[in-house]
Amino acid sequence: MAKPKKTPRPKAQTPKGFRDYFGTDVSDRAEMLQAIAGVYHRYGFDALESSAVETVEALGKFLPDVDRPNEGVFAWQEEDGDWLALRYDMTAPLARVYAQHRNDLPNPYRRYTMGPVWRNEKPGPGRYRQFYQCDADTVGTASMAADAEICAMLSDTLEAVGIERGDYVIRINNRKVLNGVMEVAGLAGDDKEAERSIVLRAIDKLDRLGPDGVRALLGEGRKDESGDFTKGAKLDDEQIDTIMSFVAAGERVTEILENIKLMKQNLPDNLFKAYLDVVEGKKPAPVAFAGPLGPENAPSHPSLVAIEVLSEVGQGNALCESAVSELREIHELVSIAGYGPDRIVIDPSVVRGLGYYTGPVYEAELTFDVQNEKGQTVQFGSVAGGGRYDDLVKRFTGQEVPATGVSIGVDRLLAALRATNRIGTTEAGPVVVTVMDRDRMDDYQAMVAELRQAGIRAEVYLGNPKNFGNQLKYADKRNAPIAIIEGADEKARSVVQIKDLYLGAKIAETATHEEWAENPSQFEVPRNQMLAKVQEILNQ
Amino acid sequence: MAKPKKTPRPKAQTPKGFRDYFGTDVSDRAEMLQAIAGVYHRYGFDALESSAVETVEALGKFLPDVDRPNEGVFAWQEEDGDWLALRYDMTAPLARVYAQHRNDLPNPYRRYTMGPVWRNEKPGPGRYRQFYQCDADTVGTASMAADAEICAMLSDTLEAVGIERGDYVIRINNRKVLNGVMEVAGLAGDDKEAERSIVLRAIDKLDRLGPDGVRALLGEGRKDESGDFTKGAKLDDEQIDTIMSFVAAGERVTEILENIKLMKQNLPDNLFKAYLDVVEGKKPAPVAFAGPLGPENAPSHPSLVAIEVLSEVGQGNALCESAVSELREIHELVSIAGYGPDRIVIDPSVVRGLGYYTGPVYEAELTFDVQNEKGQTVQFGSVAGGGRYDDLVKRFTGQEVPATGVSIGVDRLLAALRATNRIGTTEAGPVVVTVMDRDRMDDYQAMVAELRQAGIRAEVYLGNPKNFGNQLKYADKRNAPIAIIEGADEKARSVVQIKDLYLGAKIAETATHEEWAENPSQFEVPRNQMLAKVQEILNQ
Repeated sequence: MAKPKKTPRPKAQTPKGFRDYFGTDVSDRAEMLQAIAGVYHRYGFDALESSAVETVEALGKFLPDVDRPNEGVFAWQEEDGDWLALRYDMTAPLARVYAQHRNDLPNPYRRYTMGPVWRNEKPGPGRYRQFYQCDADTVGTASMAADAEICAMLSDTLEAVGIERGDYVIRINNRKVLNGVMEVAGLAGDDKEAERSIVLRAIDKLDRLGPDGVRALLGEGRKDESGDFTKGAKLDDEQIDTIMSFVAAGERVTEILENIKLMKQNLPDNLFKAYLDVVEGKKPAPVAFAGPLGPENAPSHPSLVAIEVLSEVGQGNALCESAVSELREIHELVSIAGYGPDRIVIDPSVVRGLGYYTGPVYEAELTFDVQNEKGQTVQFGSVAGGGRYDDLVKRFTGQEVPATGVSIGVDRLLAALRATNRIGTTEAGPVVVTVMDRDRMDDYQAMVAELRQAGIRAEVYLGNPKNFGNQLKYADKRNAPIAIIEGADEKARSVVQIKDLYLGAKIAETATHEEWAENPSQFEVPRNQMLAKVQEILNQ
Repeated sequence: MAKPKKTPRPKAQTPKGFRDYFGTDVSDRAEMLQAIAGVYHRYGFDALESSAVETVEALGKFLPDVDRPNEGVFAWQEEDGDWLALRYDMTAPLARVYAQHRNDLPNPYRRYTMGPVWRNEKPGPGRYRQFYQCDADTVGTASMAADAEICAMLSDTLEAVGIERGDYVIRINNRKVLNGVMEVAGLAGDDKEAERSIVLRAIDKLDRLGPDGVRALLGEGRKDESGDFTKGAKLDDEQIDTIMSFVAAGERVTEILENIKLMKQNLPDNLFKAYLDVVEGKKPAPVAFAGPLGPENAPSHPSLVAIEVLSEVGQGNALCESAVSELREIHELVSIAGYGPDRIVIDPSVVRGLGYYTGPVYEAELTFDVQNEKGQTVQFGSVAGGGRYDDLVKRFTGQEVPATGVSIGVDRLLAALRATNRIGTTEAGPVVVTVMDRDRMDDYQAMVAELRQAGIRAEVYLGNPKNFGNQLKYADKRNAPIAIIEGADEKARSVVQIKDLYLGAKIAETATHEEWAENPSQFEVPRNQMLAKVQEILNQ
């Protein structure tokens, strides 16, 4: 029998790419998710929590004959031979749940879910292998009303968690637009895969290169400032014009959105509302509108502009026409529900993450400025995205089940709320009852019980009470607002000392010598007035 | 190059031993956890969410030289050779977190955490491989005040989620009591392992076998009704007497607790309070107390009875004396904080799950009756347990770090709230706006937007609207309180039909033919009064 080896001391370390969340990181997120769940619930969505572990087979995306099917996922083999894995998103599990329980679920099925997902990817700065997602999907309907509803809900959700109107925009495109435009430009078919992928990358660089740069990449190629040459798609002029008209639609929308943002920032609320009414075509542009707002510059609805351009570009192409008709329907549904272009717009420049989507795609972008790691001012950017995917459930059942849904990047949205001080990053700590006499722990415990029963967050110091300085350091580390002190002398006189720590810190910064000597941040009260005095300080 | 095989259709199935949670299963739990977090926060505990994945090394309990160290856990090997695993509880990760971050954490560190844990065990009925835990621990203090505080907090927590006082009891024992009693009975030492384990199993069967059965098992052994013989520990009479005096202490406590429960059930509140005051020694037993409450039967405090018996049994034994002194301290601390024997008691019969505990252990038991699967009436039983474990952090740092904490079985506590109708299992569904005319989706969408903006849970029907019966079936499946109907005729007359579905169901059950014909559950209101009417019905 082998003698057990002496185990070396284990390293106290999260696995690479994982992290722990402390204090308000946890409670702020919980609060935000609760606000989101409230909106989802109001929209008729039901909660679902599927198991974190799925069979690799059900998750899909992996071939069954590779030895270790864990590329991108954390997977392991069971003793009975089955491969299990941690879910990598919430959509694949939803397809499995819907296929498994479809006879018991309402049809259509609206559900929301929130929780961690896991990705077996190379970790990097800010790139973690476990993160939260918060999804809402409607399964079992092809109606554009489902897509429109999710966009409206996303708008309500952002406002519910504290993103102000004007600081975000929900942008909607349609997967079929770009596919259709590719067809119009003669880039359909398996043999044009390479060209299409260059075109997609070129369009994605519009922000950085401008239209001329994109045009160059669609043609012969482009030399950048460093002299590096990027090969182009080698399209002819007509093809390039088609793609560029599509690109122009996105640019027009971006321009109008910037105008709307400017108006929102500069006009009083009532005038901005009047301006929006004009944009939405609810009222004609008043003659009184001067300069850039005058009738000759009557502002257009960005969604209608987009729809118009796309209609032209894609005329006669079945994919484009279907996409335009779907976008028009969504536009009408969100408009009648009161979501103007300051909240939801059709925008053909949405190209990111078209992955498995088959129809409308949408994303929520936060438009306020933040500093990036390099200290540059940039828009905060996307915090949620989604779209229609009509093929996922079919994998299981063989029947096509139309579905559409959105996923909120929980950590990013929380970061956005922090970045704009919508939620604080520190919170008041507990009242700390110090221990002056180790043998009278029951007295201190009685104090803390009294405070807690009154709903006040409070602790008795549980470390070694010998060094009183350590107790005050502890209170400081806890960000405690108040410390309570009761030594033998106080006990004999039935009083306690109350130290107002926030006031104390303030005085330490600003006080004159006289004020300091007075020490107005510490005072004595009768023991039976302790609770009232603590409440008074906390309510200040 | 191998041609990819045609993938067979995957099975839509949760892996064995895993399950999905739907609707109120999710939201009721979230609500309960939020109430618990509120109490924990008030006690000065900070939230922590550690990563779900740990290195196998950090989780411990596993030898590093076995090929596949995944007994009991879900584990897998990374490409770099590291073994990772899903956490199987919240305590091992806490030890890792504390060791890793101890310089940044307050000391002592009070933390709570809630989330799923995973066990790679054989699944069975009601036994799942993923379940929720909700833990609170204090790390870095040997003070009994930490243990006392957690017991008090557990009591507050149960009441905060809706378990009424009198329906639960927190029972406290000390790991060292039993170890000490074993020493007193001459059962210390490695060579007595077998005897100790028989003794433990025998004590655990007290409920079922009674004292005589246990005595038999401590001696020669016991034949049960079926004739099967269970081997005994073959102790001599003196040894047996020692063990049985210890057992008797537990029996006395159980008896007193039953008395207290009886009094609670039968006395008016003010008399029960007076009775408790007597039990707690706050007042002498009044002469007026008759019969079983008379002065000669003056009720005793169960904790003091337990402490007294244990003092006698363990006199002169260092382990026992240390245990008794710790229990006495905890008893005094919870008493002064106002937790009487109707909530927290010292009870030597707590023996379950002593595992890695090194001092006080505690558990929360729900004392109300439920039916078990066999239709028998039983006490609901334990929903939380914990204790002091002073060695876990030492694995990492080499330094002893005292700690104590409790874990709530979230699913069991939720089941308890359900079993006693403290929370409902069905909830009102959304108001369903039906679709009479597929081309007027925008009208219906406007209605649902109006309802949602007023805070009312509402949906527009998104399935195929052709068959109106299906829409009403859908509303029924959703448990919708109201359906809204607007056909072409209603639209022309600017009215809507409102169907009160709950009233309709009631009428269908009880109505006379005349009432039925009147159909008071469906009526017409002007379109602009829809919202007000819906609010009126919902507020009934």
